[in-house]
Amino acid sequence: MIRLHDNLSSGNGYKARLLLTQFGIPFERIEYDIDRSETRTPEFLERINPNGRVPVLETASGDFLPESNAILFYLADGTAFLPEEKFERAQVLSWMFFEQYSHEPNIATPRFWITHGIEITAERRAVLEQKRELGYAALGVMERRLAGRRFLVGDRYSIADIALYAYTHVANEGGFDLGPYPAVRAWLDRCASQPGHIPITAG
Amino acid sequence: MIRLHDNLSSGNGYKARLLLTQFGIPFERIEYDIDRSETRTPEFLERINPNGRVPVLETASGDFLPESNAILFYLADGTAFLPEEKFERAQVLSWMFFEQYSHEPNIATPRFWITHGIEITAERRAVLEQKRELGYAALGVMERRLAGRRFLVGDRYSIADIALYAYTHVANEGGFDLGPYPAVRAWLDRCASQPGHIPITAG
Repeated sequence: MIRLHDNLSSGNGYKARLLLTQFGIPFERIEYDIDRSETRTPEFLERINPNGRVPVLETASGDFLPESNAILFYLADGTAFLPEEKFERAQVLSWMFFEQYSHEPNIATPRFWITHGIEITAERRAVLEQKRELGYAALGVMERRLAGRRFLVGDRYSIADIALYAYTHVANEGGFDLGPYPAVRAWLDRCASQPGHIPITAG
Repeated sequence: MIRLHDNLSSGNGYKARLLLTQFGIPFERIEYDIDRSETRTPEFLERINPNGRVPVLETASGDFLPESNAILFYLADGTAFLPEEKFERAQVLSWMFFEQYSHEPNIATPRFWITHGIEITAERRAVLEQKRELGYAALGVMERRLAGRRFLVGDRYSIADIALYAYTHVANEGGFDLGPYPAVRAWLDRCASQPGHIPITAG
């Protein structure tokens, strides 16, 4: 059986949980307490992920795959959630790289600090202000893309949507106001109404 | 003809230039002065990339593809530079997402600040120290992976190697010392000896 090395509060972990559930693939979820650095133990670094992060997908044959968006690609390859056409497939990846570079570091980190009770020092406040600006810029890029479109790529729900849904739909928990982003909000509703959708809190 | 919207000092742009050259694909390179924000003009944001960044690949049919690693995937799809086997293909992507999340922001940014003459304020110094620590951690992850291996995935030069070569081989320009990373250094030499290799400064 597939195992998912995971943390329930993680939007990156949620991407994998959501897709596995939508595919009806049974999996065993192994929870790590990231506040206690359980993904940084020598055993974890040696056996599961030298980068000390979850999620990591463990295949039925015991191979380990880190990086949430690589997990999405692996699971969706050959399904309707990942276009076959070469340019569309590259566009899906383009949005997933956008997510990891321009979106997640700015939108997920404020949520993590707030919801995990990290002390906001003067230094962190300066970082937070910069992330706020860059996070809103990323939401602006999405708004422009989603105006007049149903989904990010090819008019069909794909893993690009899952990758960006994960932290966008809880951006408010990090202090972001989605009010000025109507196309993003309509798209969030569209994603949430897909068959097999589960909330981020479902383990 | 393919066009590459680019900046010559960018390691992300270099990834695309290197692969296009190794494939012998002719392309027109369009240079943007990022110090003068030429990728943030209304026209660029409207027509080329709403995220205001290069590289962007413009296909022969006039479609635009941002994100360096998505460009690599698009160009390498169906070639020996991207494994056909499903898990290996996902591993290539896993290393490319590692590059954009854990490696590039920490290793490329110090180089950018230093080589573009950005003033190192007290605030930037604190950020730099953190990036130094995280950058060395990323190099440590690579060192562990490359000890006893020729390339990152499947014993063959792939776009995962190109993605990580781009900023690792100029990490010293950002103040990183690769001395303690012998497996990384041997791998850099291996990448540089591939047929069709060009330096980052080749336009």
